Amino acid sequence: MSQHRHPGAPGRAGAVPALPDLPEATVARLPEYLRALHALADTGHETVSSEGLANAAGVNSAKLRKDLSHLGSYGTRGVGYDVTLLIEQIESVLGLTQCRSVALVGVGNLGHALAGYDGFASRGFRIAALFDADPSRVGEEINGLVVRHVDDLARVAVEESISIGVIATPAPAAQAVADQLVAVGVTSILNFAPCVLSVPEGVDVRKVDLAIELQILSFHEHRKASLTALPGGLAATDTQEAIGT
Amino acid sequence: MSQHRHPGAPGRAGAVPALPDLPEATVARLPEYLRALHALADTGHETVSSEGLANAAGVNSAKLRKDLSHLGSYGTRGVGYDVTLLIEQIESVLGLTQCRSVALVGVGNLGHALAGYDGFASRGFRIAALFDADPSRVGEEINGLVVRHVDDLARVAVEESISIGVIATPAPAAQAVADQLVAVGVTSILNFAPCVLSVPEGVDVRKVDLAIELQILSFHEHRKASLTALPGGLAATDTQEAIGT
Repeated sequence: MSQHRHPGAPGRAGAVPALPDLPEATVARLPEYLRALHALADTGHETVSSEGLANAAGVNSAKLRKDLSHLGSYGTRGVGYDVTLLIEQIESVLGLTQCRSVALVGVGNLGHALAGYDGFASRGFRIAALFDADPSRVGEEINGLVVRHVDDLARVAVEESISIGVIATPAPAAQAVADQLVAVGVTSILNFAPCVLSVPEGVDVRKVDLAIELQILSFHEHRKASLTALPGGLAATDTQEAIGT
Repeated sequence: MSQHRHPGAPGRAGAVPALPDLPEATVARLPEYLRALHALADTGHETVSSEGLANAAGVNSAKLRKDLSHLGSYGTRGVGYDVTLLIEQIESVLGLTQCRSVALVGVGNLGHALAGYDGFASRGFRIAALFDADPSRVGEEINGLVVRHVDDLARVAVEESISIGVIATPAPAAQAVADQLVAVGVTSILNFAPCVLSVPEGVDVRKVDLAIELQILSFHEHRKASLTALPGGLAATDTQEAIGT
């Protein structure tokens, strides 16, 4: 079994290749592999073992091999994966061979940070338009882009072929912004507002809630403290029973 | 079966209750329930059905009931969950009954946004110290806190009882910062730098990579386009075979 080029990549000019319905967890790890592969390519590596790549991406190598097998990539025994080819395959599957235009709505502190974040452009995304509802922010220039009023969203989204919307507004404004994005045909939304969005089927929403990340860490801190405070080993079982009574 | 107070909550003053080893996915959803419950409490609701809470949190109700059963919370038939009691239970499990002090390292664009983010304090976290390696940033005041040099990390972490470190530095600096945090006893790290951190066992790292979130959305955009472009239904199967050949 050797490594194959994604069938739809170069050659079938213009055609969008159909894609396997990958497990969501695999999709979430592909960008990690891609980042690690780019780092390897930048340092002159032409091939990489599954163990080497798994280490660089912070996953275990069995999981990595399984993930890549979904793409038809099995590497070559004794050689490993061809770095350049695997980059092409993953970029093709993730749809990164075309640059995607992103509209960012809400230019408060977080929106400012996102608008100025260098990591997007280098990974296939172009922040194409900034919006805010606050008239005092409209006209402000951030990283070479002028903030527009959110009422211009529909027109600009078409002009700029927006394919992804990023919501960085306060929570009470987020649903209305999502509705506006959906109305102009945006089907992928990254939501930083701390609220749940209702969207029609076919629209993908990913949510980043920074406080939730801290709360999850808090659980682990709390749990570590509880294990230290009580006689080792028995703590978890003890409590699980106690809570259930 | 009715709703019980977490056995270790009030009453056992000073003692840290031991905690069940909850599934990671459950831990990740508890903050969502908590946010929804606070919104319900703020609008005068005293009880909530599992369906109502599940909707507000954006999960299905069977999953919610299962999650809460891990905490020993089963609600009361025909009444639902007591909102105040469930808030107490979840906050207790997440360790949010004590305010946790956070050190933020790296005050570039993203660090600025995080330092100014209001959502932390309202959910049990206090940004207690800001650090940067750039001497020109040291002394700058953000949201009432003065940026200190990262060389002061060890001293300040002890003074401020830092329990969580947030890394918002560029990728090449992140590992050294993580090492410093671990050296002063921080065992929970939230990493915004686009890289994998090596940490000893017992240290929890959560990672937020904004570009990765966009790449995951890109996959879904790409996939939706591929399904539209090809005769419906067969696309996925077709390609999965094609890729495997």
